[in-house]
Amino acid sequence: MKNFIHENFMLQTETAKKLYHEHAEKLPVIDYHCHLDPREIAEDRMFRSITELWLGGDHYKWRLLRANGVEEKYITGDASDWEKFEKWAATIPYTMRNPMYHWTHLELKRVFDIDKLLSPETAREIYETANNMLRQPQFSARGLMRRFRVEVVCTTDDPCDTLEYHRQIKESGFETKVLPTWRPDKSMAVENGESFRAYIRRMEDMCGFGIDSFSDYLNAIRQRHDYFQSCGCKLADHGIDNFYAEPCTTEEAATIFGKVTRLHEVLTPEEVVKFKSKMLYENALLNYEKGWVQQFHYGAIRNNNSRMFDSIGTDSGYDSINDPTGVAKLASLFFDSLEKEGKLAKSIVYNLNPRDNYLIAAMIANFQDGSCPGKIQFGSGWWFLDQKDGMEDQMNILSTQGLLSRFVGMLTDSRSFVSYPRHEYFRRILCNLIGDDVEKGLLPGSEMVFLGKMVENISYYNALGYFRF
Amino acid sequence: MKNFIHENFMLQTETAKKLYHEHAEKLPVIDYHCHLDPREIAEDRMFRSITELWLGGDHYKWRLLRANGVEEKYITGDASDWEKFEKWAATIPYTMRNPMYHWTHLELKRVFDIDKLLSPETAREIYETANNMLRQPQFSARGLMRRFRVEVVCTTDDPCDTLEYHRQIKESGFETKVLPTWRPDKSMAVENGESFRAYIRRMEDMCGFGIDSFSDYLNAIRQRHDYFQSCGCKLADHGIDNFYAEPCTTEEAATIFGKVTRLHEVLTPEEVVKFKSKMLYENALLNYEKGWVQQFHYGAIRNNNSRMFDSIGTDSGYDSINDPTGVAKLASLFFDSLEKEGKLAKSIVYNLNPRDNYLIAAMIANFQDGSCPGKIQFGSGWWFLDQKDGMEDQMNILSTQGLLSRFVGMLTDSRSFVSYPRHEYFRRILCNLIGDDVEKGLLPGSEMVFLGKMVENISYYNALGYFRF
Amino acid sequence: MKNFIHENFMLQTETAKKLYHEHAEKLPVIDYHCHLDPREIAEDRMFRSITELWLGGDHYKWRLLRANGVEEKYITGDASDWEKFEKWAATIPYTMRNPMYHWTHLELKRVFDIDKLLSPETAREIYETANNMLRQPQFSARGLMRRFRVEVVCTTDDPCDTLEYHRQIKESGFETKVLPTWRPDKSMAVENGESFRAYIRRMEDMCGFGIDSFSDYLNAIRQRHDYFQSCGCKLADHGIDNFYAEPCTTEEAATIFGKVTRLHEVLTPEEVVKFKSKMLYENALLNYEKGWVQQFHYGAIRNNNSRMFDSIGTDSGYDSINDPTGVAKLASLFFDSLEKEGKLAKSIVYNLNPRDNYLIAAMIANFQDGSCPGKIQFGSGWWFLDQKDGMEDQMNILSTQGLLSRFVGMLTDSRSFVSYPRHEYFRRILCNLIGDDVEKGLLPGSEMVFLGKMVENISYYNALGYFRF
Repeated sequence: MKNFIHENFMLQTETAKKLYHEHAEKLPVIDYHCHLDPREIAEDRMFRSITELWLGGDHYKWRLLRANGVEEKYITGDASDWEKFEKWAATIPYTMRNPMYHWTHLELKRVFDIDKLLSPETAREIYETANNMLRQPQFSARGLMRRFRVEVVCTTDDPCDTLEYHRQIKESGFETKVLPTWRPDKSMAVENGESFRAYIRRMEDMCGFGIDSFSDYLNAIRQRHDYFQSCGCKLADHGIDNFYAEPCTTEEAATIFGKVTRLHEVLTPEEVVKFKSKMLYENALLNYEKGWVQQFHYGAIRNNNSRMFDSIGTDSGYDSINDPTGVAKLASLFFDSLEKEGKLAKSIVYNLNPRDNYLIAAMIANFQDGSCPGKIQFGSGWWFLDQKDGMEDQMNILSTQGLLSRFVGMLTDSRSFVSYPRHEYFRRILCNLIGDDVEKGLLPGSEMVFLGKMVENISYYNALGYFRF
Repeated sequence: MKNFIHENFMLQTETAKKLYHEHAEKLPVIDYHCHLDPREIAEDRMFRSITELWLGGDHYKWRLLRANGVEEKYITGDASDWEKFEKWAATIPYTMRNPMYHWTHLELKRVFDIDKLLSPETAREIYETANNMLRQPQFSARGLMRRFRVEVVCTTDDPCDTLEYHRQIKESGFETKVLPTWRPDKSMAVENGESFRAYIRRMEDMCGFGIDSFSDYLNAIRQRHDYFQSCGCKLADHGIDNFYAEPCTTEEAATIFGKVTRLHEVLTPEEVVKFKSKMLYENALLNYEKGWVQQFHYGAIRNNNSRMFDSIGTDSGYDSINDPTGVAKLASLFFDSLEKEGKLAKSIVYNLNPRDNYLIAAMIANFQDGSCPGKIQFGSGWWFLDQKDGMEDQMNILSTQGLLSRFVGMLTDSRSFVSYPRHEYFRRILCNLIGDDVEKGLLPGSEMVFLGKMVENISYYNALGYFRF
Repeated sequence: MKNFIHENFMLQTETAKKLYHEHAEKLPVIDYHCHLDPREIAEDRMFRSITELWLGGDHYKWRLLRANGVEEKYITGDASDWEKFEKWAATIPYTMRNPMYHWTHLELKRVFDIDKLLSPETAREIYETANNMLRQPQFSARGLMRRFRVEVVCTTDDPCDTLEYHRQIKESGFETKVLPTWRPDKSMAVENGESFRAYIRRMEDMCGFGIDSFSDYLNAIRQRHDYFQSCGCKLADHGIDNFYAEPCTTEEAATIFGKVTRLHEVLTPEEVVKFKSKMLYENALLNYEKGWVQQFHYGAIRNNNSRMFDSIGTDSGYDSINDPTGVAKLASLFFDSLEKEGKLAKSIVYNLNPRDNYLIAAMIANFQDGSCPGKIQFGSGWWFLDQKDGMEDQMNILSTQGLLSRFVGMLTDSRSFVSYPRHEYFRRILCNLIGDDVEKGLLPGSEMVFLGKMVENISYYNALGYFRF
């Protein structure tokens, strides 16, 4: 019997196999959005065990462990690496049909060349084999990135970040470009006065001048934006509840800024949205000036479990999909406010609730201005949608509303050095979609040259050209 | 040519056939949510005709008859049994691709062993064959339940119900467990003052004490809850517009209660939601104390046709799918309010609008606490979604967001004694999904032992363990 | 290698081929909703080039050109016909998987009998071949309609339209029935006072009396409605944001009318919705009186790009899918207000956001009154949903919630004389869906006679009977 992860895994048709093996497989990886810790790359981190590598910070896995009835001790608690791995191995068969089942075995195969399926029976052997390999230098952070031929990664960084590790990495001559991404969410988070004021003080330290007014604040933001640019930044990313598009003059923003920073007042929800609207707009102008690509990830609802938030904090597997309303109107107003000034940067929109797939795919088309192919992008399946069905839906809907051929493709969005097989996974799914269409006569079999090029573009070249790495 | 309902009906792959016939087919039925009338079981009702059995209260069929241009006389009116059946037989071919076409022929086959397709040509013969069989004692209510090897059914009961028929059934030694379900919707329906006050008086009669305050009311509710427990109740069910999660102190609830019961005031919408929030929370605490499973069915919009409501009342086929907003936030607040007290009972959430599938599948994962596998469940396709596409969507989305393997599976939600083939229908769909994945290499063919167990669990054992029947 | 558009294009199963070729293919076309300009039919317009024919007003194509990075000069600007065509030819390969790729090649084949795929290599040859053919008389507007055996088209017309071209066409003896459709959107557009007042003046001119009150206005509307009836109108169409169902008395409407027309006041959003609710209700009564079919297209958000709106105006490819809320409640109230008076006309509802597919399919079933089959229709995939996935979703969801067999089927909604292959496209998709079900045993293969009839009905006869052409 064939191994589960074999060369034609997921490829259902001859056309899909041909497209994958002749066009997609060999291309390097551009991972233009992730949450890797640049320090770990700078220091070329080693991993003490597959538990640390896999279960250290992966809240996708934590959610499945909890759903499988595993005690928190074995998830984020003080159980040993082996005990945690054992629980994960016992959970894995129960994850069948979840993307984790595929990811896990792709990672075992591609990282450790392990063909066995993870289960209680194979747990010990896999644990030891993997741990032995992880002691070898080629399994360091950089080693793993080399293994997957990663040409570029873009991390996610706060405006107040020194980017010292990015500089160290660059100076070290590491062959993968590791670039920062401007993610100014905290700089707009005016709803929490105390942490916002602390943020302002941090910003003052970074900038070396006092921030006594909104005008100072915008200057500080601009200085940091310039600094990111000098460190090779080419992307911004905005994590938002919905598009912020409430009209807000500079005077109004200044008043709101003063209320939080000087008067320590609690803002109304209207004031919060106004301020964020102003800030998002100002950021978008900066992104345009620099020629960056700006990303918008909207629609998460976070920290839904307050008991666990109090116990283990954010990013622990308690986030979820929201159902924002008025999205079309707000997205329209936001993009239009920039487009009418001729200052709309290249943009990628990621929705978290798939009920908005069609809405977003249609909305972005209103702001394609003919200046470059695929200027405004419908982003690949994000977070809860980063799985086969989610990616297929995104690509199918993009196909009906725009140009799949101009899609900049996949990103890992990951905190892990072994998530790169998700690019392989994506490429297999892409080839399979196209192959299926060819087999059904929905795409012309005579056009294999173009289709091969299209697969190569979506896998690699579109991103290369779009982001100008 | 093969009969329409043949042994491999709906099973597209060899793996699906193997999974169904070797694992799913032989298992008994646990029907943990239905609307059977316990009196009919207690009295072991006989049916005078297939018309009475099929068309007596089945508003799914009524909707299709109306859509097919059939006069109300032949639906809920005074036409004869034969006339009504004739109209239904004439409608059936026009229902092709509607789940009713499958259900009808599954029921004809499994109840009456009829292989003919229902149509005007076969109507008379089927009518007479079926009616003759219905005169035989094994076609009584209990006979039908035995025929389908139904081990447990949970009916749906008001807190003021005496549960006398449940007691009679138990005392009769009937081999199927017939358990009540606590469904306190009317006890919260404060928006209609008059019927709410009447409800309070009924509650006073049941409890044997006067209800003069909100505190009395909570005592009465608790007394009835205890009584349900003593009658074997293991589930609660809440039919709600959306999750009610408006903060409401006991004092506020008492004030609102007084406005309705003593002052006969009309409440504001805000007061109604506050009161319902308090009641839902108090119920959830009781459910937790008893170790029950609580179900939430949200998102219906009822009695949309006021002319027909005035003529034939509720549950007549004039209900529909609503589009509630703020679902994520409200569900999050509701579950969190219980989870942070450590008092969240096992719960099942059923949404009626499939646009919320992803939202719910992701939201429930925030409250999996590791205490048991699949503690919080994404409920099977409900009502308008109880059909092949709806069930497949629910299972596919559950698979991407959690653990299909831990799913407690199907329920009929039916008022009929011949709806049990829906369990067969579900199992065939389940086996087909998994079989398809195996054939495509998305699940490993080497793991047939586990997959067989998984099918058995979802068909039967998960429910057995989860509800602790 | 087979041509891309071959006789079994899109037909995946033997059953699908049989259903299409024996039942669907030969039937004439009823195009009950489109945006053809009746003047072009009256004058039997010729086209100077395929550019004029294809790219003259087709904002679907414009969106794709912009997404492909083509300058506006080559889209709506002053580039030559050849230059524009060249850009389109270069874009076409990049539209693979977009419906435009199918439409384009279906139109090349069916209009010009061209089998070559459009691309930069074939552009010149196709351009010249097509242009030569367009000089021949059989490629006039009427010639094209004859070519596709179009029996009926219903255009979309303002109440103030003279319908002179419809009269001319009728008098000319043209064998295709060209009927007007009552589309009174502008007559309710009270949100823009200035254009509304201009509209009233135009209405006065058409009616020959002064409109000094709301009562006058209703009289004018009725007069025009009668006039449309006298010109063969059988359908109304309403382009709405959402269902307008705010209670509004005649007195309130009169007050609002006075505010706009006499006092030149700007109305509140509430007043606007009230007035529109009244007008929609009054229109629905007229539609009922006449026995017309009324259509509701809801959920668009228009003119999202204000820079381009200022430059090239409406209908230029800057419209999009909105996310209205409260749809279920409003649709329920609207239809119920008519149904309870016994004055609900046959109706077709088209939603633009597919997240509402289930909601609408379920909601319309509440107003099926048994007076005729499929009285209330779930409309075919509209605009952004008028593509294979969108049409399949609509038909699958209609199938689960009602009777696909009673569906009145496809319409082009087009401004072009060469969009009729979309009926072919629809029929192939329909046959394919049914064929696939038969092959999988989900529909009985023994019932090919009924299935053939069902395909014929959905392709042609249902519309014929429903609209009573």
